[in-house]
Amino acid sequence: MTKREPQNPERVVSVRFMPFDVSARVRAGTNLLEAVRSAGLPLKTSCGGEGSCGECLVQVVNGRAGGSYETRPSVALSSELAGKGYILACITTITGDLTVDLPHFEELYIRSVAAFTLSDDEATTLSGSTEVGPVVSRVELQVPPATLEDNYSDLTRLEIELRKATGAERFTAGYPALVRLAAAVRQDNGRVSATLFGAGPVRDVLDLRPARSAGPIHGIACDIGTTTIAVSLVNLETGDVVNTVMGLNRQLKCGEDIISRINYASRPGGLAELRGLVVGTINTLIGKTIDGQAVRGPGRSDRGISGEDIIYASVSGNTTMAHLLLGVDPRYIREEPYVPTFNRLPYLRAADLDLAINPEARVYCAPAVGSYVGGDITAGLLATPMLIDSERVSMFIDAGTNGELVVGNRDWLMTCACSAGPAFEGGGVRCGMPATTGAIERVSVTEGGDLEYKVIDDAKPRGVCGSGLVDLLAELLVGGYIDRQGKIKAEAAGERFVELEDGAGFLVERAEMTHWGRELVITERDITNLIRTKGAVFSACSLLLKQVGLTFDKVDAFYIAGGFGHYLNIENSIRIGLLPDLERDRFHYLGNTSLLGAYMILISDENRKMVEDFSKNMTYVELNTEPSYMNEYTGSLFLPHTDLDLFPSIKKLL
Amino acid sequence: MTKREPQNPERVVSVRFMPFDVSARVRAGTNLLEAVRSAGLPLKTSCGGEGSCGECLVQVVNGRAGGSYETRPSVALSSELAGKGYILACITTITGDLTVDLPHFEELYIRSVAAFTLSDDEATTLSGSTEVGPVVSRVELQVPPATLEDNYSDLTRLEIELRKATGAERFTAGYPALVRLAAAVRQDNGRVSATLFGAGPVRDVLDLRPARSAGPIHGIACDIGTTTIAVSLVNLETGDVVNTVMGLNRQLKCGEDIISRINYASRPGGLAELRGLVVGTINTLIGKTIDGQAVRGPGRSDRGISGEDIIYASVSGNTTMAHLLLGVDPRYIREEPYVPTFNRLPYLRAADLDLAINPEARVYCAPAVGSYVGGDITAGLLATPMLIDSERVSMFIDAGTNGELVVGNRDWLMTCACSAGPAFEGGGVRCGMPATTGAIERVSVTEGGDLEYKVIDDAKPRGVCGSGLVDLLAELLVGGYIDRQGKIKAEAAGERFVELEDGAGFLVERAEMTHWGRELVITERDITNLIRTKGAVFSACSLLLKQVGLTFDKVDAFYIAGGFGHYLNIENSIRIGLLPDLERDRFHYLGNTSLLGAYMILISDENRKMVEDFSKNMTYVELNTEPSYMNEYTGSLFLPHTDLDLFPSIKKLL
Repeated sequence: MTKREPQNPERVVSVRFMPFDVSARVRAGTNLLEAVRSAGLPLKTSCGGEGSCGECLVQVVNGRAGGSYETRPSVALSSELAGKGYILACITTITGDLTVDLPHFEELYIRSVAAFTLSDDEATTLSGSTEVGPVVSRVELQVPPATLEDNYSDLTRLEIELRKATGAERFTAGYPALVRLAAAVRQDNGRVSATLFGAGPVRDVLDLRPARSAGPIHGIACDIGTTTIAVSLVNLETGDVVNTVMGLNRQLKCGEDIISRINYASRPGGLAELRGLVVGTINTLIGKTIDGQAVRGPGRSDRGISGEDIIYASVSGNTTMAHLLLGVDPRYIREEPYVPTFNRLPYLRAADLDLAINPEARVYCAPAVGSYVGGDITAGLLATPMLIDSERVSMFIDAGTNGELVVGNRDWLMTCACSAGPAFEGGGVRCGMPATTGAIERVSVTEGGDLEYKVIDDAKPRGVCGSGLVDLLAELLVGGYIDRQGKIKAEAAGERFVELEDGAGFLVERAEMTHWGRELVITERDITNLIRTKGAVFSACSLLLKQVGLTFDKVDAFYIAGGFGHYLNIENSIRIGLLPDLERDRFHYLGNTSLLGAYMILISDENRKMVEDFSKNMTYVELNTEPSYMNEYTGSLFLPHTDLDLFPSIKKLL
Repeated sequence: MTKREPQNPERVVSVRFMPFDVSARVRAGTNLLEAVRSAGLPLKTSCGGEGSCGECLVQVVNGRAGGSYETRPSVALSSELAGKGYILACITTITGDLTVDLPHFEELYIRSVAAFTLSDDEATTLSGSTEVGPVVSRVELQVPPATLEDNYSDLTRLEIELRKATGAERFTAGYPALVRLAAAVRQDNGRVSATLFGAGPVRDVLDLRPARSAGPIHGIACDIGTTTIAVSLVNLETGDVVNTVMGLNRQLKCGEDIISRINYASRPGGLAELRGLVVGTINTLIGKTIDGQAVRGPGRSDRGISGEDIIYASVSGNTTMAHLLLGVDPRYIREEPYVPTFNRLPYLRAADLDLAINPEARVYCAPAVGSYVGGDITAGLLATPMLIDSERVSMFIDAGTNGELVVGNRDWLMTCACSAGPAFEGGGVRCGMPATTGAIERVSVTEGGDLEYKVIDDAKPRGVCGSGLVDLLAELLVGGYIDRQGKIKAEAAGERFVELEDGAGFLVERAEMTHWGRELVITERDITNLIRTKGAVFSACSLLLKQVGLTFDKVDAFYIAGGFGHYLNIENSIRIGLLPDLERDRFHYLGNTSLLGAYMILISDENRKMVEDFSKNMTYVELNTEPSYMNEYTGSLFLPHTDLDLFPSIKKLL
C-alpha cells in the first residue's frame, strides 16, 4: 500500500533554478521570489512583490500548477507568456518540487560579433596579423606498414613520416595519441591525420586518427568578461569563424563587479563555486557553438563537430577572471600592494581547467599587465591599429564593467583601469541587456517627441543594449526631456513620464509592444548609473593623458571597445560626455576587441608572440592612488560635463 | 515490519574475491570452488575437490559460517588456520553474501630485493652510475614579498628566485603549482619548496609548497614482470631505498604467459581489464611501500610519506607489459611482422596512467628493443658490468617468464628472447612461489637422504622459490632420486615418494611443518616444467652465440638475473644444465636487474640517457624463425643435457 503523505505545512520541498543549476530546500508554502533570493540569485523587482512590474518573470521547466506551485494572473503577465509556462515569482507559492528557469540569465545568442565586421577603413587596419598560422596544426601522412625487414615500431614509423612532413626534429606523443596509434596507422591503409602542437623543432602530438575519420581541427576564442562571456568557434585550417555565441557570466549571481567577486571568493567554498560557474558558462557556450555545425572534409562524409575536434583555446579576460578560471584565489589583487598571482601563464591543458573540449587541447590565456589591466586589453590591442604607428599617438578605451585605457603607440604604451560598472553592457539598468536578440540598439527621438528604434534581429524588444542606452541618453538630453544632471522633465516627457516605486522614469516602450509583455522604462536611477559609468571612463582618460603630459586634442585617434553592441553612435557618445568633443573622424568603434584579439591569437602564433612582447613593456598607472582622480570624476557627473566649455559643439545644442 | 526472506533455492547471492576485487553473482547453494572458477580466477586443486589436498584454501574476510557459507572440517586444514577463518573452497557451500581472500594471490612482502645487496666484487661494478642526480629536483627558495614599488606577480617573483637558484632560464608552472602558488609564497614567510622536472635550461614546476610543510621528494622504481611486480620507494634527495615490496601481477588471472595475456586483451573489455589489473597491483604495492614510512625534515615535524610526495616513477617491463600499462592493444606484437606500437615512450604523466602518486609526477618507461626484448632488459643492462668493457665479451641472461639474453660489450650488443615460462618465479610448479617470506630458497640433500633447507625470513615454509627449485632439482639428480629425464625413482625416494592425482611426486616437507598445513610436494609434472624452462634458456643462449660466431667458452662473464630469489647456486644451475659447464667464477648472479635498472634510471638522469643511447644500437635476433632452434631445445630437455660431453664436470657425478 502506498502511504499518502499528509499536507504537512512543515513539509520541505526542493526548488531548482536554471541555468545556474542551483537548488534550494524550502518549506512548502514559501514564496517563490523569497526562495530565489534565499538561493542568492539576483532576481530584481521594482514593484516590491505586488505582481505589477513583471520583472520577476520565471519559466516553469518542471512542475505543474496546483501540484508544485500556486500562482495567480497578473496584468504584468501576458496570456501568451502564461501559456508558455511563465509565472511571476512574487505572486507564486511553492507547494512541491519545482524547477524554474530565470530567463534573464539564460544564454543569449547573437548573430555575429561586431568585432568581426570591421570596415576596410585605413584607420582600422589591425596591429595583429590576420594570416592563419596557429600554434596547432594538422598533417595527413601515409605511414607505411611494417615488414619483417623494416620492423620499426608504429611510433617510430609515424615519427619518420612526421619528420618528413613537417621538418621538425622531435615529436612527443601525448597519452591519448599513444593509445590511438596502433589503430590509426592500420585502419585507413596507413593514412593518418596527426594534430601537432608547437612551431619549433619539437612538437607535441595531441591527437591521431585514421585520415578518413578526421575532420579539420578547430579552436575556440573566448572572451571572459565580468558581465558577459563570448565564445567563437573557429576552423583552425581556414581561420573561418564557424559560430559566435554570447551569454551572461553565471558568476553574476555572486556580484556584479570584480570587487564583489573577489570578496565572494574568500567565502568558504566561494572560490570553487566561482570557478564552477565560469567554466559552466563557457562549456554551455561551447556546446551552443558546436550545436548543429557539420564538417565536410574532402572525400569524407559529413559529420558534426564535437568537443574532441577543438584542440586549442585562446582566452582573454581581466586578471580576476583569469584567476577565477583557474581556481586561483584573487584576494591579493585587492590587498596592498595589489599583486596578482600571475600575469602571464604557460599553456595549460583543457583537462586541467575542465573545459568541454579535447582534454589534450592547449589553453593560452592572454597576458595581463597588472591587477586591473588584463588579457582582455593586451589581446584587444592586437585588434586595434595602435601598434602600427610609432609617430601618431592614439588611445584605446575599453568600456567594460571594468574600464581600461591605453595611450601610446608602437614605441610606448601607458595603461590604467577604472571601475566603470556594467551599465553599458546592460547591467544595473532596469531596461538594460546585452547586445543580443531583442535588444534596442539604436534610438532617436523624432520632432514630434516620439521614439524610433532599431532592435537586434528585428525582434520584439526585450531591453536596451549599450549603444541604445547611449543614444537614449543623448536624445533625451538634446531633446530636452532630461536635464544635465539626468533628471527627467515631467512636463516635457508628458505621457512618457512614469512614477515607479524606485522613482521617476521615462517610458521607452509600452508593455504590449515588448517581448516580455511589460513596459520598458529608463529611470532616473538608471540614468545616474549611466552618467557614473561614462564619467568614470571620461575622467580616467583625462587623467591618464595628464600623467603623460598630453591633452585630448594631441591624441590622433581614439579606438573604443566594449559591450555596447554592433555599433556605437560617436556623435551621441560625445553628446553625453563619454568621449571628448573632437573631430568625429578621430573616433573608431571596434566592438568586442577582447574577443577579436583572442581570435587573432588563436589563428596566428605570430600574434601570440607579439602580445607576449609588447605586454611586457606596458607601463601600468595606478589611478586609485592619484589624489586628483576624485575631482576629475566629480566634474564628469553632468551631461556632458560640469565644464560645458570642454564640449563646445554640444554647448550650442543645449 | 521487516519481511523475512524465504529460503528460496533460486536466491542469488554475491561473492567477492580479494585481492582481485572481482565479484560474482551465484545461486545460493553453489560450491565456492565453482564460484571461484566461474569468476575466472586460477585457484588450483590436485585432489579434484575432495577436500584432501588443501590447495583451494581461502580466507573469509566478510561473512560467517551458518549464514554466508557452510563448510566442513578437513585433514588438509589445520585447526590453527581454521581458527583464523581459513576454509577449503571445494568443500564449502555459499549460502549468503560473502567476501573471501585468495591468499596465494595476496601481495607478498619481501625484506629486501637481492638487486640491492650486490657484493663489492670487481666483476660486478655496474655499467650505470650510482651517483644521485635525478631528472626531478627540489629547491628551497626565499621569495621576497611584493611591495608597491616592486609589484611583480607572485609567479614572476618565484621565477626570479628559481632562476637564481638553478641557473635554468625558463620555468613552466603546471596547473597544480599555479593553484598553490599564492599560498606557498605567503604561508611560510616566503620560504617555498619547488619541485622541478628537467635538467636543461627549461624546467617544469611540478609542485610548490610552503617550505615548512615540504618533505624530501620521492620516486618509485617499478619492475613489471609477467608474474611478479616489484616496487621500490626511493628518497630522491639521497637515493636511499625506503622500502621494497613485491607482489604477484594480478593479470595472472588472465593467463600465465605473455601470449595468453595478448590473447586476453583482444576479448571485449579484456584490454581495459588487464590495464586495470596491472595498475591495481602497482597502486596496492605503492600503498604498501608508503605504509608507515615517516619523513623527518630538518626543523620539521615528522609526517608520513603520501602519494603526493612521489613525483617521479621509473618503470621497466617487457614490451607487452608496457603496452598493457598504457592500455595499448599489444596484438600486433604477435602478428607478423611482430612490431610493437612503441619501443621508446616519451615521459608520461602519472594522472594519465591512473597511478596513485602525485598526478603531475612524470613516468619514464625504459625503452624496448623489440616485441620480445623490453625495458626490463635495457634497464637491466645498466645493472650489469657489460657496458664497461669493449674487449671482453659477456652474456646477460634474464630468466623471467619470458627469457631474454644479451651478448656483447660496450661496442656491440645482440639480443634475443625465448619463452621460458614462469617456473623459476614459482609459476606452473605445485609448490612454487615467488621469493618472499616463507619461500624455501636453498635446499640440500644430506648423506642420509634427508632434505635440509633455508626459508626466507626464517618462517614456516609456504613453498619453494626459484633458487630453491634449482637446488632441489640438482640435489635430486645428483643424489640419484630422479633420473636425467626428471622421472622420480620410487625406490630411492622411499617414504618421500608420493602418488597424487596428477602423477608421481617427491615430498619436500610434511603438512604439519608448513605454514599452510599441507604437504609440499614437487611432482614429475613440475620437474618437466622446470626442465623445459632451463632448456629454453640454455638452448637460446647456445643459439644466440652461434649467430654471432661464438661458443660458450669465448664468453668471459655471464650475468644471470631473474626472479630466483636473493641468491642462486651457480654449481646447481650448471648441474641441471641451466648454465654451461665453465669455470664457476665466470658466473655472477645479480638478482632482479630490471628493478635495479629502474632504480638506477630513477636516481640518475645520466643513466636514463645511457639507456636511451645504447638501446638504439642493440641488434634484435628473432629465434622463432630460426630452424635449428627446435633441435637445440630438444637436446636441452635432459638433465643437464642430451649431450653429456657438454657438461664434463657433471658427467663425473652421474
